[in-house]
Amino acid sequence: MGKTSKSSIAEKKHDVVNRLKLLGTDIYEQLDKGVFPTINIPSRSTENINYDPNIRQYILGERVVSRSARNIRHVKPFTQLAWAALFSNELTTQRKTSTLRDVYYSAQAYEMSFTDQQESNNIITDLETLTGFRREDFNIFPEERSAIFGDLNIEYTVPGYEGKTLNLTSHPDGVLIGPALTSSEFVSTNADKVIAIEKGALFTRFIEENVHNKHKSLLISCGGQAPRQTRAFIRRLHDELNLPVYIFTDGDPWGMHIAQVIISGSANAAHLRELNTPDAIWSGVWATDIVDYKLPTDPLDEVDIKRLYELQRDPRYQNDPLWQREIKMFLKIKRKAEQEAFSRYGLTYIVDEYLPKKLKETK
Amino acid sequence: MGKTSKSSIAEKKHDVVNRLKLLGTDIYEQLDKGVFPTINIPSRSTENINYDPNIRQYILGERVVSRSARNIRHVKPFTQLAWAALFSNELTTQRKTSTLRDVYYSAQAYEMSFTDQQESNNIITDLETLTGFRREDFNIFPEERSAIFGDLNIEYTVPGYEGKTLNLTSHPDGVLIGPALTSSEFVSTNADKVIAIEKGALFTRFIEENVHNKHKSLLISCGGQAPRQTRAFIRRLHDELNLPVYIFTDGDPWGMHIAQVIISGSANAAHLRELNTPDAIWSGVWATDIVDYKLPTDPLDEVDIKRLYELQRDPRYQNDPLWQREIKMFLKIKRKAEQEAFSRYGLTYIVDEYLPKKLKETK
Repeated sequence: MGKTSKSSIAEKKHDVVNRLKLLGTDIYEQLDKGVFPTINIPSRSTENINYDPNIRQYILGERVVSRSARNIRHVKPFTQLAWAALFSNELTTQRKTSTLRDVYYSAQAYEMSFTDQQESNNIITDLETLTGFRREDFNIFPEERSAIFGDLNIEYTVPGYEGKTLNLTSHPDGVLIGPALTSSEFVSTNADKVIAIEKGALFTRFIEENVHNKHKSLLISCGGQAPRQTRAFIRRLHDELNLPVYIFTDGDPWGMHIAQVIISGSANAAHLRELNTPDAIWSGVWATDIVDYKLPTDPLDEVDIKRLYELQRDPRYQNDPLWQREIKMFLKIKRKAEQEAFSRYGLTYIVDEYLPKKLKETK
Repeated sequence: MGKTSKSSIAEKKHDVVNRLKLLGTDIYEQLDKGVFPTINIPSRSTENINYDPNIRQYILGERVVSRSARNIRHVKPFTQLAWAALFSNELTTQRKTSTLRDVYYSAQAYEMSFTDQQESNNIITDLETLTGFRREDFNIFPEERSAIFGDLNIEYTVPGYEGKTLNLTSHPDGVLIGPALTSSEFVSTNADKVIAIEKGALFTRFIEENVHNKHKSLLISCGGQAPRQTRAFIRRLHDELNLPVYIFTDGDPWGMHIAQVIISGSANAAHLRELNTPDAIWSGVWATDIVDYKLPTDPLDEVDIKRLYELQRDPRYQNDPLWQREIKMFLKIKRKAEQEAFSRYGLTYIVDEYLPKKLKETK
């Protein structure tokens, strides 16, 4: 595909700041009316988290919790939440990024007290739940460790780089997926798919073997379980560029679940949309691939097997013959294999033989 | 500084291949003479590893182990080592990269048997010891997770990118330090120092606050303990560009040791030079900084304290009043602090106040 339409990055920023303002004015209006201000937040308690098979992710139910300044037990979390909104507003308008750890320590600069980081993390999740925006939208980012490579032209929106562009093949080791990349606009691409890879070693192999050209793809190194911002970025690539997403992981329950979380998200993020890509496809390494390709394997250990039984009962794995079949096969063969196991047929076998076959098979 | 002279990347590649050929011809010549071939390798046993305070790193002593094809117990490791040299030669001449994991699986493509990966790892270390080159010189790379940002123009030497250049400020999240970057030639830089940072979050903060311009520096995110290729890359920046190296870590025994390994290397790498930068400086967060800056802290736990006593006896920490003083202070205050703790004085305090002071203090 050619030039893409501008995404909604600027618009979204506007929406985020407006949503925070709305929260502030809502509190002020209640105060003006002479009532103790109250904030209503969708409940994140376990009984209010349900898996929705239609949109293929966890969502929150109808329950709501109220935080009222009238209630002495609520005063602290109420104040903390108001502070978190203030701090997020500062970050967003001053265009500074931070981390959950930073938020915890920054509170001390405002003489706002949190008992520990868990408490401040929870308040940030409250703010996400209340506003429907991700903490990354408030410039609170996780540590970067995933990377991208491929023919995508982006235009930065971060200070000092506004309007500058980069083609993501510029650096053949890959560039980090951080605040600057995730806030960039997509300008154009010749890729017709996204390939997300669990491990950095295979990402490097794919670049070296020219997979981005041969299969017109944007390559993403997840670095294990993909961080939230990378998962949201994969969703953007899918939605804004209309690209199908294929995921390649190790052939074990952990790799399988890395793919699943990209596809269906996690219960922890039931209060958010757009962190997952329901149409993404787990293309391998399947348990059946281990058998078909006679891969060198290691035995599943007890923890692996326990995990497989958990996944078998997990709603995200229900109603899908692929997942169920692969779980059964893992339990049958009681073996697992890494992506690198294909090297037993030579370093390029995975690119020359396995990849094209699987891309076709899972199309 | 301006334009730098070309480094010895091309020359080194030439040397590596020649060294492997020499190993091969040496074996052939012995066979031609009708004797069982023997390979002599410096011993890596503990008693042959000594700390050399002059060059400030571990080195191997005079002991040598012989592997003779005559000895039935030596035949397997002898053959494995010869195969490892063959495979390394293929990687280097065909310009393909791989990993230790790949090496283990690739052996099966040659019907070469290793009991487990530990065995193949050891053989690669034998090859390093025998040749004096790092496995990265044979294109066997660790997983990438560290990144760089700053005004350095590089010229690639990897296939498909020969002669292409990149300025390392092109992507404001940073670019990965992988095979393409570490094999690039340095063209020019305006930086006058290198700042290596333990954590990605602070690396992002430094970029955002323009530290690369304000302090004319190349910024490196170590991603925790810096991978070997990143440590070797820091050494190249120091040696080829004559840049002093400052290291910023968390204020705890683990952060302190991350700095120490960049400076003095590890006993495991006693058979190699150029993985460490003896002139690099640990600039903070010191235990004395925790006191001076009244940072928010966590208590040292038992494992932290045990580690401090180990480090106190470690030869790399001897004869240096700074390390000894800081270990003593940690043991006295029994507290530790993360780099993010400075956020208690506002997000930019670490850049506006702490960093300039420490750069001056440790110059």
